[in-house]
Amino acid sequence: MGGRLRHTVSFLSDYGLDDEFAGVVRSVVRSVAPHATVVDITHGIAPHDVRAGALALVRAVQYLAPGVVLAVVDPGVGTGRRAVAVSAGEDDEAVFVGPDNGLLAPAVAMVGGAVRAVELTNPAFQLVAPGPTFAGRDVFAPVAAHLCNGVELGELGEPVDPLTLLPGVVPLSRSEEGRLVAEVLWVDRFGNAQLNVGPEQVEDLGDRVALRWGSDKARTARRATTYGELHVGEVGLVVDSYGLLSVVLDRRSAADELRLNTGDAVTLEAS
Amino acid sequence: MGGRLRHTVSFLSDYGLDDEFAGVVRSVVRSVAPHATVVDITHGIAPHDVRAGALALVRAVQYLAPGVVLAVVDPGVGTGRRAVAVSAGEDDEAVFVGPDNGLLAPAVAMVGGAVRAVELTNPAFQLVAPGPTFAGRDVFAPVAAHLCNGVELGELGEPVDPLTLLPGVVPLSRSEEGRLVAEVLWVDRFGNAQLNVGPEQVEDLGDRVALRWGSDKARTARRATTYGELHVGEVGLVVDSYGLLSVVLDRRSAADELRLNTGDAVTLEAS
Amino acid sequence: MGGRLRHTVSFLSDYGLDDEFAGVVRSVVRSVAPHATVVDITHGIAPHDVRAGALALVRAVQYLAPGVVLAVVDPGVGTGRRAVAVSAGEDDEAVFVGPDNGLLAPAVAMVGGAVRAVELTNPAFQLVAPGPTFAGRDVFAPVAAHLCNGVELGELGEPVDPLTLLPGVVPLSRSEEGRLVAEVLWVDRFGNAQLNVGPEQVEDLGDRVALRWGSDKARTARRATTYGELHVGEVGLVVDSYGLLSVVLDRRSAADELRLNTGDAVTLEAS
Repeated sequence: MGGRLRHTVSFLSDYGLDDEFAGVVRSVVRSVAPHATVVDITHGIAPHDVRAGALALVRAVQYLAPGVVLAVVDPGVGTGRRAVAVSAGEDDEAVFVGPDNGLLAPAVAMVGGAVRAVELTNPAFQLVAPGPTFAGRDVFAPVAAHLCNGVELGELGEPVDPLTLLPGVVPLSRSEEGRLVAEVLWVDRFGNAQLNVGPEQVEDLGDRVALRWGSDKARTARRATTYGELHVGEVGLVVDSYGLLSVVLDRRSAADELRLNTGDAVTLEAS
Repeated sequence: MGGRLRHTVSFLSDYGLDDEFAGVVRSVVRSVAPHATVVDITHGIAPHDVRAGALALVRAVQYLAPGVVLAVVDPGVGTGRRAVAVSAGEDDEAVFVGPDNGLLAPAVAMVGGAVRAVELTNPAFQLVAPGPTFAGRDVFAPVAAHLCNGVELGELGEPVDPLTLLPGVVPLSRSEEGRLVAEVLWVDRFGNAQLNVGPEQVEDLGDRVALRWGSDKARTARRATTYGELHVGEVGLVVDSYGLLSVVLDRRSAADELRLNTGDAVTLEAS
Repeated sequence: MGGRLRHTVSFLSDYGLDDEFAGVVRSVVRSVAPHATVVDITHGIAPHDVRAGALALVRAVQYLAPGVVLAVVDPGVGTGRRAVAVSAGEDDEAVFVGPDNGLLAPAVAMVGGAVRAVELTNPAFQLVAPGPTFAGRDVFAPVAAHLCNGVELGELGEPVDPLTLLPGVVPLSRSEEGRLVAEVLWVDRFGNAQLNVGPEQVEDLGDRVALRWGSDKARTARRATTYGELHVGEVGLVVDSYGLLSVVLDRRSAADELRLNTGDAVTLEAS
């Protein structure tokens, strides 16, 4: 002990809110580290969708309060996948706790990369589990709480070479015969479809950009600064709040109307 | 600085909980004002439904803890609509932060009306935004947190005449040829359909009230004190927990069974 | 007053998160007992489903932080059902607040049984209600908060003999002609179907267990330690995180694929 106290556990999972999973994890943190506050990032990641969880975490990470980041999207629970804690950033400002399955990696990289890592092998900082399937409650939550209490990373288990941590897979867009081949990273609640394309990549395409996706779908999108500049029904391409291009409509769902889904390939070229 | 500390940010939005929007806003508040607690009112307002957000806020407002009320239902984000902070009530007990689009107005009026207001034009109390579409994160959350830290309203931007704030639109019921013409304000999770009618307005109609809605739907409702007084399938008209009349069934959804929706016109007359 | 302070209100309900019900309850607790933290267990219990609420609460209860447990699934609100506070466990470590309809009983039993109970009849610790239908806001939340402030149980209302509290109904499995007749207690977000069967009850059935349910459905399930041991499409029977047997598939929803629902009868026998 004697380490520094941490005061915030930022918590993301695919637990949903219909069951009591997230609530039990919050309760375990509260029981072990009553001084810490749990801040829910989201629990709405689709079940077992590690990629969606990693993308949500990397979108959020630079806005999180200093402390522990607890992330659980864990289809391999109870199998050989490692449970890990990874410190990152200057002066170990953040410690990430979760499964070593690529979920944490993009966020860890975003805040400066892994400084140290351990596999969570020390049962002294875990709960005795009636079964192996709820690692969020039995492994990750108590570890997050003990970190808040000042337990040092090295006490939680065996050191792991950060270079052996599973990398995250964030798809990159590419140029191909004068077109930009991109992908829908995320469709949000409002139906905006975020592409893996920064505004600098489309500078040469001009004000109107031809979008193609699916086997035969196509629309022309206008570059705009915000939704409100668009006419009714006009498709826009705006720099969204993460600095990436999103396909949007004003006050309507672009994803619904254009039938764009997460993971769809989209090509962009001058119109 | 040197102003009084505030300790609670009551937070309502149309962000839903599937994306990380609400979580990122909570995290920004936590980062800027670690002593403050965010209390979620709801994030389940339908996307862009300013009226539904205003009604939920006015139902909740008298029960909120003193502090800052952060409300974001903001279809005009990034356009000309003003972002504002409005102090209300005795001794500025509450400060409302959000878009000036009618969302805040009914709640502000409910707690005594606006005392002072500013447009949020001072970038020193906002985040640098990669794009203009997430004002909750970049404008409203940091402002709410700085208010908790004791920043004075006047430091946040230019003064605004409270009389110029956009009013909320809460529909009123009216008498017409001996009938009361009302509207469904809200259908809750349990299927109760709240009308914009107080019990004093139906005193003359007696114990049984004829309801008509849609092109041809009609039912007789019995005045009752609570759900449990109703027979199976009997339609009741009870004074709900906000002092308004609601159309209800016992342990079943009146809205589903009677096909009543938010915004439907309903007439009431003696049966 | 002068009683001991309590610092946590663990909160479960069937309010959902689309309306502001849960948020208003949180706000009332915050207003009356600003030092207390509300930890949400879940608000996703199906409307009026007392049994599902009781099962979620009993699964969670041993992980909750010391303090007050506030649970509201209350189809009989406003009728004769009693509103109660029940202290349980050694040294009154937990006080349960909610309706006396069987919702609290299994959790109270799990932590050692009721020590004392009162009916919430003292209006001094409740809010004045515009209508009788939102007891969570007007009765249960202020009582939970006053308990956090050190108010003694006896001040909240008339003593109730704990033996008269309504018991919870948790179905038991039974042996019948060499088969075990069980029931699906719960289907979780991931589609795992929890049975009311402990592993010791199926020791004699061997490694492969024949499951039958519905009028004519049948599958053979293999005993496994965790999901990952199962082949694609193979049905497993694992000891879940509560020590009960669950019917599972690896990374897919057993409930969806096998059409298993909460409450279904399932028989188990040697295969």
